[in-house]
Amino acid sequence: MEHHKPNNEALDLARHSMAHILAQAIMKVRPGTKLGFGPAIEDGFYYDFILPQPIGEADFKEIEKEMRKIIEANQKFEREELPKDAAVARLREMGQQFKIEYLEDLAKERNITSFSFYKNGPFIDMCEGPHVDTTKVIKRDCFKLDRIAGAYWRGSEKNPMMTRIYALMFETKEALDEFLKRRELAMQRDHKKLGSELDIFVIEEEVGVGLPLWMPNGTIIRDELEALAKEMEFKHGYKRVATPHITKGKLYEISGHLPYYKDSMFPPMTVDENEEYYLKPMNCPHHHLLFRARPKSYRELPYRIAEYGTDYRYEKSGQVSGLLRVRGMAMNDAHIYCMTEQVKDEFKKVLELHKFYYDLFRMGEFWIRLSFHSNDKPEKYVNNEEMWKYSEKIVSDIAQEIGIAYEVRTGEAAFYGPKIDFQVKNVIGREETASTTQLDFAMAERFNLEFTDASGNKQRPYIIHRAPLGTHERFIAFLIELYGGAFPTWLAPQQAIFIPVSEKFNEYCYKLANMMTDGFMRVEVDDSSDSFNKKIRNNTKRKCPNLLIVGGKEAEESLVTWRRYCTPDQKTMKFDDFHKIIRQMIDKRIMDNFADTIIPAI
Amino acid sequence: MEHHKPNNEALDLARHSMAHILAQAIMKVRPGTKLGFGPAIEDGFYYDFILPQPIGEADFKEIEKEMRKIIEANQKFEREELPKDAAVARLREMGQQFKIEYLEDLAKERNITSFSFYKNGPFIDMCEGPHVDTTKVIKRDCFKLDRIAGAYWRGSEKNPMMTRIYALMFETKEALDEFLKRRELAMQRDHKKLGSELDIFVIEEEVGVGLPLWMPNGTIIRDELEALAKEMEFKHGYKRVATPHITKGKLYEISGHLPYYKDSMFPPMTVDENEEYYLKPMNCPHHHLLFRARPKSYRELPYRIAEYGTDYRYEKSGQVSGLLRVRGMAMNDAHIYCMTEQVKDEFKKVLELHKFYYDLFRMGEFWIRLSFHSNDKPEKYVNNEEMWKYSEKIVSDIAQEIGIAYEVRTGEAAFYGPKIDFQVKNVIGREETASTTQLDFAMAERFNLEFTDASGNKQRPYIIHRAPLGTHERFIAFLIELYGGAFPTWLAPQQAIFIPVSEKFNEYCYKLANMMTDGFMRVEVDDSSDSFNKKIRNNTKRKCPNLLIVGGKEAEESLVTWRRYCTPDQKTMKFDDFHKIIRQMIDKRIMDNFADTIIPAI
Repeated sequence: MEHHKPNNEALDLARHSMAHILAQAIMKVRPGTKLGFGPAIEDGFYYDFILPQPIGEADFKEIEKEMRKIIEANQKFEREELPKDAAVARLREMGQQFKIEYLEDLAKERNITSFSFYKNGPFIDMCEGPHVDTTKVIKRDCFKLDRIAGAYWRGSEKNPMMTRIYALMFETKEALDEFLKRRELAMQRDHKKLGSELDIFVIEEEVGVGLPLWMPNGTIIRDELEALAKEMEFKHGYKRVATPHITKGKLYEISGHLPYYKDSMFPPMTVDENEEYYLKPMNCPHHHLLFRARPKSYRELPYRIAEYGTDYRYEKSGQVSGLLRVRGMAMNDAHIYCMTEQVKDEFKKVLELHKFYYDLFRMGEFWIRLSFHSNDKPEKYVNNEEMWKYSEKIVSDIAQEIGIAYEVRTGEAAFYGPKIDFQVKNVIGREETASTTQLDFAMAERFNLEFTDASGNKQRPYIIHRAPLGTHERFIAFLIELYGGAFPTWLAPQQAIFIPVSEKFNEYCYKLANMMTDGFMRVEVDDSSDSFNKKIRNNTKRKCPNLLIVGGKEAEESLVTWRRYCTPDQKTMKFDDFHKIIRQMIDKRIMDNFADTIIPAI
Repeated sequence: MEHHKPNNEALDLARHSMAHILAQAIMKVRPGTKLGFGPAIEDGFYYDFILPQPIGEADFKEIEKEMRKIIEANQKFEREELPKDAAVARLREMGQQFKIEYLEDLAKERNITSFSFYKNGPFIDMCEGPHVDTTKVIKRDCFKLDRIAGAYWRGSEKNPMMTRIYALMFETKEALDEFLKRRELAMQRDHKKLGSELDIFVIEEEVGVGLPLWMPNGTIIRDELEALAKEMEFKHGYKRVATPHITKGKLYEISGHLPYYKDSMFPPMTVDENEEYYLKPMNCPHHHLLFRARPKSYRELPYRIAEYGTDYRYEKSGQVSGLLRVRGMAMNDAHIYCMTEQVKDEFKKVLELHKFYYDLFRMGEFWIRLSFHSNDKPEKYVNNEEMWKYSEKIVSDIAQEIGIAYEVRTGEAAFYGPKIDFQVKNVIGREETASTTQLDFAMAERFNLEFTDASGNKQRPYIIHRAPLGTHERFIAFLIELYGGAFPTWLAPQQAIFIPVSEKFNEYCYKLANMMTDGFMRVEVDDSSDSFNKKIRNNTKRKCPNLLIVGGKEAEESLVTWRRYCTPDQKTMKFDDFHKIIRQMIDKRIMDNFADTIIPAI
C-alpha cells in the first residue's frame, strides 16, 4: 500500500545511478561487454549484459570492490543531449548495438529526436536520468550484489539471452542488514517450506494447483480454528448452517454473480440441455435463501448465520501459490441480517470479535481500511445517498470508539455498501489484508428478503458480511510464518511427546500418555530405536512444544522432566502437576509459543 | 430384499382374484363400465376403469359391500380357452373394446392364437390367471379400498384417461391393520414432513433438487454427529484429513472412476482446452494421494485417515427424494491402510465401531450382508483367488466371533474385494442399508501405494473403506423417522426452553439460561407475549425434550419445574440439581427420548 511506504524517489534515483556504476565496473572486469537495460527496482537495481566471458557469484567480491573504487573517486554525473545521428554514431563507437536498436525504436515509435547520455568518469550510457550529482553521494556499504539470472533482451524469447545481475541497495547499511535479516527470516519461515517439512499440506499434480490436500497435522490446525470460531459464534448468538458447494445458475442470476463475477468462477457443469451447475465462489446467496426460507419477525433479528463453507474461485494459474492464493478456500463466513437501527451495535460487535481474534493470535499491530463510495462516479454505486452517509458514518464512528486505527479510501466501496478491510503486517513487515467485512443495504432487494416490523409492515433487512479469520488457507499460511511453524500447545499437531531415555521406560510413558489421550490431548511416545539425543533432535525438528523426558527417577517417583520447545531449560515435576498445567494451557488457549507468555502454575 | 420377505405367490393370486371381484362389483354399481387392467401389486391390487358416471371415495363403502357379497356367494372361478375369433366376438358382445385392442396386440406381437377367460358368477374377464378356486377362499375383512387415481390406458398419454381404484389386501385382517398402522406412522414420521416442520432442512429451486440446505436446527444435528465421530475416531487412532471437493480428471483416470463411474458423476468443468475438473463422487482417490505423499514404514501402519468429506453424485432427478436420495452427501468416511496380517484386527474394530454406533442410537436389530465373489464369472473380479479366500474368511469369521447375524451373497462383490453392507430396519419395518464397508486388496496397485516392511522390502498395503454413519443425509433422515423428530437432549436443537408463567419471571429465566449457555448448552427463554398454555403447546410442537417452567415459587427458591417432552409428569427441583443432571445427559449422550432410558440422578 503506497501511502505506508516511505517516499522512495531519492532512493530510486541513487539505485539507478548505482546501476551505472555496476555497468562501469563490469566494463572494467569484462571489457567488450554489451549493455542492455539497468533500472532501479524494489529493494535495489539490476543491469543486463552480454558478457565476453561468463561471470559467477564468486566474482561478486571483485566487482563490488571496483564499484566502491568508483564511489570513492567521487565522479560527477554529467548529462549531454545529442541529436539522433550523433547519438547513433556515439553508440556505434562504443560498440553498444542493443542501445542503438532501442534508440531506433524510440525514434520511430515515440518520435524522439534528441537523446540524453550520462557520463561519470570514463563511463558513458544512453539514459534519461536523472542521477545523483556525484558517485560519492552513495554510501559505500549500503549495497550488495545479490544474484545472477538469465533474461531475454527486452523480455522476448526471440532475442538473445543476457546475464542479469541483481543487486540490493538501501539508504543505509543498517537498512540493508535489516532487509537481509528479514529475507532470511522469510525464507526460513516460508509457509510452503514449513508446510511441507511439518506435514501440514501437500499439493498434488493429479488434483491440481491451488487445491491443497490437508495432511493430518494441518487438519488439526484447521479443526482447532474451526472449534474456536464455533465457540465464539455460539457466544455471540450466531446459528450455524451448512449449504451445498454447488448450485444451479439461477441463484447467481438473482445475485448478479453471473454477469459480474463469472471470470473468477469455475466454468459450469452442464447436465441435460439447459441445466447448468456452478461451484459456489462465496456463501452469501445460499445464506440469503436460508433467511428467506421462513417468514421472519423483527423479534428474530439480528439473525446471524455462520458457516465454514468451502468456496471455489478460478484464480489464474500464474497467480496461484501455496496457501496464500488458492482455488479452493474454507471461509469462516457469516451473514448478519438486522434492522437498520441495529447495524451500529452489530458492526461494533463484529469489530470487537476481530480484535479478540487478532489479539489472541498475537497478530501484532492491525488497522482498518475503509473503502467508501464517491460522488464522482455515481454510476458505480447504488443510488441511496442517505444509506451511504449512514453506513459510512457508522463505520468511522465505531472505529474511533473502540480505538482501532483506520484510514479512508473514497471510491473503492462495493457497489452495494462500504467495505472494511482488516490490515495486518506479516512476519517480514509486508502488509496483508486479513479479512474483509461489508455493510450491504442492497442485496436484500435482489433476493426479496424481508421481515415484519413491530407495526406489522414488511421491511428489508440490512446485511453485514463478515469473516474475521478470512480463509483457513491464508490464515494458516499467515500463522505458520508468524510462528515459524512453532504453534502454541492448544494448536500444535503434537501437544506433547514422551521421550523414554531407554526402552524399559516405554511402558510407563504409554501409561501416562493414555491418561492424556483420555482427555483428547494429542500425545505421542517416541518408542523408536533411535538414541536419546536423536529422539530429542527429531522431535524438536517437528516443533513439538512439550517434550517429556522419562528415565529411572521419573518412572519410580511418578515424575516427568518437561522440556519446552527450543529452550535448554528443563524442569522435573510430578506428572499430575504437569497434566494439570497442560490441561489449562489447552483449555485457555495460552500462547505459550511466545517467550513473554506466562505459563499457568498449577 | 427377497429372502426376508414372505413368499407372496399365494397372496398375489388372491389379490388378483380380488381385482376381478372389484371389477364385478363396479359393473354392478356402474353398469356399462369399460375395463382396463387389474393386477396384483405390492400391498394389494388395483383395477382401471372408464366409468359411465364418476365414482368417489364416498362410494367405497357401497362397493366394498358388493365385494363382500360376492365373497360370501362362494362363486367358483372357471377357466375357458377360446380361439382368436371367438374371443373377439365374446369381448365385443361384452362391450370391452380395450380388451379387444389388447388381444389384437397379443396376437400380433406374441403370436398368441388362444385366449383364456375366467368366469365367476355372472362376471367374465379375459385373463391369464391363475385364480383362487372360489371367492370364499378370501377373508372378507382382509382388504380395503384405498384411493382413486387417474391413469392413462396402457400408460401412454395419447390414450384415454381411466379411473384407477387402488385397494389394500393382506392375508389377514391383523396384517391389514398392522400395515395401516405402520403407514400412518410412516406418514406422521416422514422425514420430509418433520424436516420441514422442525426447520431441519430445506430444498430450494434456485439451488436444485437433491441439494439440501441445512437450517440451523439441522446443522446442530450434523455438528453433533460429526463431533461424536471425531471423538470415536480419535479414540480409535484415526487421523483427520481434509481434501478439496474437486480434482483434475487425471485422478479418476488412475482410480478407474472415469471409465466405470462417469454416469453417476456430475459432468466436468472444462477450463482452457484440455483441463477438466470433476466434483468428487467419493473420497478414496484423494485419500490414496495423502497416503502416497510421504514414504511409509510398517511402523506407521495401520494408517487410518478420516474425513467428513462432501461428495457429489448425479442421481437421476426421478430418483432424488428428500434426504434419502441426494446429489450432495456428507460422508463419515475413512480409509485404513494396513498390512495383510493386520486386516483381521482392523476389520473387527470397524465392526465393533458400527455396533457401538447402532446400539447408541438404538437402531434396533441389525445384521450384515456379505457380498462375495463367484467363480462363475471370473472376468468380473480381480484374479487373486488366495486373497479372495483370505478376505472372505476374515469377514465371516469375525461376524461369527462378535455375534452379528450375517448372510452371504455370492457374485455381488466389488471387483476389488468383498463388500459388507450393514442392514437395518426403518421405523415402518422396511429394510435399509445403513452403511457399506469394503475390503480392498487391489486399489493400492493402481495408485502405486507401498510401505517398507520390517526387512526393508516394499509391499502394497491392504485398504479397508468404511463409513459407519453412512452419509449425514441418510442417517439424519433415518433418525428423524426413528425418533419421530423427538431427539435426545444431546442431539436436540433446543436442549431446554424456559417457560416463565408470566413476564415478571423473564429476567430470572434469562439468568439461569445464561448459566447454561456458558457451558455451550442450547437454551432458549420463551419471552413471547403468548399465554402460558400456548407457550407449552408451541414448544412441545418443536419437540424440545426439556421444558422448564418458572413461576413465583421457583424464582423465590432457585427452583425450576421440569417437564419432559410429551409426558404430563413434572418435577420441581433446585435449578443447580437440574443443571447437573442435564450436563450429564449431554456429556454421556443419554438417549432420553426412549421411555425406558434411566435419566441419571444427581
